[in-house]
Amino acid sequence: MAPPFQRIVLASRPRGEVKAENFRLESAILPELQDGEVCVRNQFLSLDPYMRGRMSAAKSYAASQELDQTMIGGTAGRVTASRHPDFAEGDAVVGLLGWAEAGVARGDALRKVDTGTIALSAYLGVAGMPGMAAWYGLNHIMHAREGETVVVSAASGAVGSVLGQLAKLRGCRAVGIAGGPEKCAHVVVELGFDACVDYKAGNLLADLSAATPDGVDALFENAGGAVFDAALSRMNGFGRIAVCGLISGYSGAPAPIHNIGALLIKRISLRGFIVTEHLECWPQGLAELAALVAAGQLRYRETVAPGLASAPDAFIGLLKGQNFGKQLVRLM
Amino acid sequence: MAPPFQRIVLASRPRGEVKAENFRLESAILPELQDGEVCVRNQFLSLDPYMRGRMSAAKSYAASQELDQTMIGGTAGRVTASRHPDFAEGDAVVGLLGWAEAGVARGDALRKVDTGTIALSAYLGVAGMPGMAAWYGLNHIMHAREGETVVVSAASGAVGSVLGQLAKLRGCRAVGIAGGPEKCAHVVVELGFDACVDYKAGNLLADLSAATPDGVDALFENAGGAVFDAALSRMNGFGRIAVCGLISGYSGAPAPIHNIGALLIKRISLRGFIVTEHLECWPQGLAELAALVAAGQLRYRETVAPGLASAPDAFIGLLKGQNFGKQLVRLM
Repeated sequence: MAPPFQRIVLASRPRGEVKAENFRLESAILPELQDGEVCVRNQFLSLDPYMRGRMSAAKSYAASQELDQTMIGGTAGRVTASRHPDFAEGDAVVGLLGWAEAGVARGDALRKVDTGTIALSAYLGVAGMPGMAAWYGLNHIMHAREGETVVVSAASGAVGSVLGQLAKLRGCRAVGIAGGPEKCAHVVVELGFDACVDYKAGNLLADLSAATPDGVDALFENAGGAVFDAALSRMNGFGRIAVCGLISGYSGAPAPIHNIGALLIKRISLRGFIVTEHLECWPQGLAELAALVAAGQLRYRETVAPGLASAPDAFIGLLKGQNFGKQLVRLM
Repeated sequence: MAPPFQRIVLASRPRGEVKAENFRLESAILPELQDGEVCVRNQFLSLDPYMRGRMSAAKSYAASQELDQTMIGGTAGRVTASRHPDFAEGDAVVGLLGWAEAGVARGDALRKVDTGTIALSAYLGVAGMPGMAAWYGLNHIMHAREGETVVVSAASGAVGSVLGQLAKLRGCRAVGIAGGPEKCAHVVVELGFDACVDYKAGNLLADLSAATPDGVDALFENAGGAVFDAALSRMNGFGRIAVCGLISGYSGAPAPIHNIGALLIKRISLRGFIVTEHLECWPQGLAELAALVAAGQLRYRETVAPGLASAPDAFIGLLKGQNFGKQLVRLM
């Protein structure tokens, strides 16, 4: 019989803010490997804001995370056993094995990745789903052109950091919004944005206005609430808005938006999207992102929590903006 | 010298609600007709919500209405003198001569219309700019398909009434939102919508839910505020929203929108638009609308105020929803 492994299940649905008690660490046994399946030892778990939505029973775009089942989520690891012709022991793979040390998946649910030029963990961030969210929004919704001003909230995060760098690469003015001077400095100095506004500094609208002297042509919205409102007030005519996340409202009643008039007055085009619904774009996007990472043109930062047991607290911190760059869990 | 005519000018900018004292009725003299110009005696003035925005000095999508100048606006009348080869005395024309009994315009700023099968006044409503707003939103933003549910606010108004009828003609379920039982009855009985919700009845969300059992696939928004919020909560995945007006917020601080999360969760596509910025669509759209009116397939209702002096009060009533169908002023 296979040795037991550790996993984290959803123990109860949060009411308001997520708490550690909503999760439970437990042991489980891997099922016997069937034809076409692959057994993976996870090395990194991806923690992402969308998981908060899945924890609620409320109808959303995706099925709820079931109680007492392994928390869903992206993973990167190594194949330990394979009954699928495309995978061999030792292969690096990314998949959706959830908050667990190991798992079994069908081969077609795994993607073999090259760790020769890119670190395995990057396939969960800049060269994975978060990177694709930025790539899709910029290319398919924001249509940002050279010389235009692009604004992105949660700019130091896994998605926002890629968005601004991609915008810079095409000759846009990239302006971030992030929480605190350390994150803002990172966004400008390390990631090369033209400016970054600290929404916690108390002068959001004035600071954003100063950072966007020519207004905002395209907005990538991750935050919602006051940050979204401020950005709306700076939009130029025929501006484009990609709504990727509204993290400020994930743990309670979302803050209302006041500058709705801008949608009409500025003739805004806005689209909310879920990047996993546009898989037809992934081969092209992932190839571009991986090439840019390998060439050193796309930088990223990670916050890595140690060990499976650290995942709940790391996730709670993520929802509060305590992470810095992509939030991962490294399995021991 | 030409005889004097009456006109209404903007005397002062409103603070909050528009008041009669913001306007001034006065006499003026027509300028001498130049080559290429046409003199028109207006028979109808169009009153439209967009005029409220022009009365403010605040930056909007269009230049402000200047103080002490004739209030802007669409007009329909007859040519009284012409120095343009395409126009002759007696021709029926629509133009933008403003709140005035007469005016002079260049020929290329006038459109000659056929009053043989369609009443002159209809070219200011169902077969004019308001009709085009509905036509453009339905065809170029909402992409409503047979069997889908379409919702429109201000459903008995000049734009909303056309929107719902066009939706019905293509096999959609058309649901209106309007103020009061009389308007709602008109929308269903006379215009043929499948249902109309009275937002003044106190059960907006429950009533709208009952009227849209399969959710809302496409929304045409004229109102803003609580009406927009309720419609957002009923949107289906991949729903489309055309924002044409937000009349509830025109006279003060616009009501905030709470259901912003729907933009993301439902992956909404939304676009605000000004139909006069899409003139390339007008020849096709106006031809379709006129044909439908002539065939009796597009019905309309008008509220006609008598005489130029009645325009300010009629406009103030329009902003409060006191009109029923297209608001016009008939000149004596």
